[in-house]
Amino acid sequence: MSEHFINVDEARRTCVEALGNAGVPLEHARVQVDLLMEAQLRGRASHGLLRLPRIVERVRRGIADPITRGELCWRGNSLLHVNGRQGLGPVIAFHALEQITLRAKETGVAVASIEQCNHLGMIALYAERVAAQGQILIAMTTSEALVHPWGGRTAMIGTNPVAIGVPAAPHPFVLDMATSLISMGQVHDYAHRGTPLETGWALDANGDPTLDATAAKQGSIAPFGGAKGYALGLAFEVLVASLTASAMGVEVKGTLDAEHPCNKGDVFIVIEPAAGGAATQVGAYLDAIRRSPPQRADRPVLVPGDRAHRQRARSLEDGISIAPDVWRSIRELAIS
Amino acid sequence: MSEHFINVDEARRTCVEALGNAGVPLEHARVQVDLLMEAQLRGRASHGLLRLPRIVERVRRGIADPITRGELCWRGNSLLHVNGRQGLGPVIAFHALEQITLRAKETGVAVASIEQCNHLGMIALYAERVAAQGQILIAMTTSEALVHPWGGRTAMIGTNPVAIGVPAAPHPFVLDMATSLISMGQVHDYAHRGTPLETGWALDANGDPTLDATAAKQGSIAPFGGAKGYALGLAFEVLVASLTASAMGVEVKGTLDAEHPCNKGDVFIVIEPAAGGAATQVGAYLDAIRRSPPQRADRPVLVPGDRAHRQRARSLEDGISIAPDVWRSIRELAIS
Repeated sequence: MSEHFINVDEARRTCVEALGNAGVPLEHARVQVDLLMEAQLRGRASHGLLRLPRIVERVRRGIADPITRGELCWRGNSLLHVNGRQGLGPVIAFHALEQITLRAKETGVAVASIEQCNHLGMIALYAERVAAQGQILIAMTTSEALVHPWGGRTAMIGTNPVAIGVPAAPHPFVLDMATSLISMGQVHDYAHRGTPLETGWALDANGDPTLDATAAKQGSIAPFGGAKGYALGLAFEVLVASLTASAMGVEVKGTLDAEHPCNKGDVFIVIEPAAGGAATQVGAYLDAIRRSPPQRADRPVLVPGDRAHRQRARSLEDGISIAPDVWRSIRELAIS
Repeated sequence: MSEHFINVDEARRTCVEALGNAGVPLEHARVQVDLLMEAQLRGRASHGLLRLPRIVERVRRGIADPITRGELCWRGNSLLHVNGRQGLGPVIAFHALEQITLRAKETGVAVASIEQCNHLGMIALYAERVAAQGQILIAMTTSEALVHPWGGRTAMIGTNPVAIGVPAAPHPFVLDMATSLISMGQVHDYAHRGTPLETGWALDANGDPTLDATAAKQGSIAPFGGAKGYALGLAFEVLVASLTASAMGVEVKGTLDAEHPCNKGDVFIVIEPAAGGAATQVGAYLDAIRRSPPQRADRPVLVPGDRAHRQRARSLEDGISIAPDVWRSIRELAIS
């Protein structure tokens, strides 16, 4: 095992201690670490343990509140409004999900609109848990403006990911994707390594196309899928803002920095599947897609989540791969 | 005015007569024609009057039922299941929407899951009407398998459009997009004109890339936005099927032919915006995007719906542009 691979249990314990040292109650620390760890296990380092030092910093500076579970207010029998009171993202989110998954069993559907809540982490995980319990989840969340409009020059729209979880046998179907072509994390990574970007990925601070990752850090990234992806990301931005009364565009702050309260919005929609459920049929359909003839014989057709699923199994066996400097700073936070 | 431009009122009257001759009650004929006409007015010919002769044929052959408004059954206080009983798409859809928009005012959110219903037409229109009345709508619908999986060779997934309507001042925000890169209608159009397709648009019957539109008619079309667009279209396919117990993939039939009952599914999600609404803020944000510096000085940044909006105003003034053979066959149906 290389020095970059850390045993999962050890990493988890260290992270929980780091949060505990900052005043996060044990139960909340476990929920927060669980979210980061599951992203790390699935190979999504950008949403993994890398984020822990920033969370600790926000808690220490009093910007994030490690105690609150949010203020819940039913705006109707099926619509829960949540003021997150700057609580930890996964703590607020799971608290809200508990309420609406229960309510949806009764009413058929329930929605949570969440504002003033810290970063939720990888939203696939919420979709997976809800779908594994037999319900459909649509999750949307907004972010700082990093994406330029199609045909535009400046960052005006968040990377606005969507996750969709649908019960399926044997594993739930889980989609989780940003509406940007690449992530700003990737741009930073390319800049760090001095590797040029690909054409069409990003603009510089003047709004001109650039392959220089360092220049792109001050600029903006492209929406995925051209005009359609732009339209979709924008739709999520206004839908979430309309429902949660959260900020839009360049007004959004607090998911990437350690200075600002978080004013983006999050939306969860939980729906009961058809009577009897279609989990078996959905599973069979997904398998038919996997077995369908591939474009290249050595690359079988994949279904969303397949890669993450395999990576998770590998990580549990081998340990998680983590950048040495990230691991060092987490260990320092755990012992200080 | 060229001979291809038809006065809107005249076209509407003729279409209603054509449906009336086939036994469609006047009120239902008006609803159906309204949907087709609004698509035509917005320049979306593929969802316009072109579809009328096929609808008449389905009614005449007893495949579509022009009388029913569907069988409605609340599966919970906020979840309405609709068996469309092979009724006309817009008739069933508006009936369901009436119920759930009212219910959402009370409960905050309501969903309709619709099965056994004919083609809804351009789903932007439902989103626009709901958003103009101050509620959020998410609409999804599945279709015949025409799209190949990313890295696959055969059509396994519908073109699965999504529409999102959000209240905004002065006009609601309306997104409506298929999850395919192009439409099969465009492929037919290219084949008709003998124009080659662009790279990456389609595969032939063997699953090999082709620029020959005639070969592509027997093959499949690409998802928009590569792997992400594929994942999204697939997510809509399984979400809709899971909720409506409708067919998936190659089992889906009846939106393009005159032989099969329609077994795809439709989902409407209606949600109340935040108290006080954010229509003014959303409108201001959309305007900021329109005013943001464009990539090319002669092409201002657009917001979804802008083009359709302008085209509609032009069509109302100039009349609608319609292919002479389509108009001829509609007139024949109106007098026969």
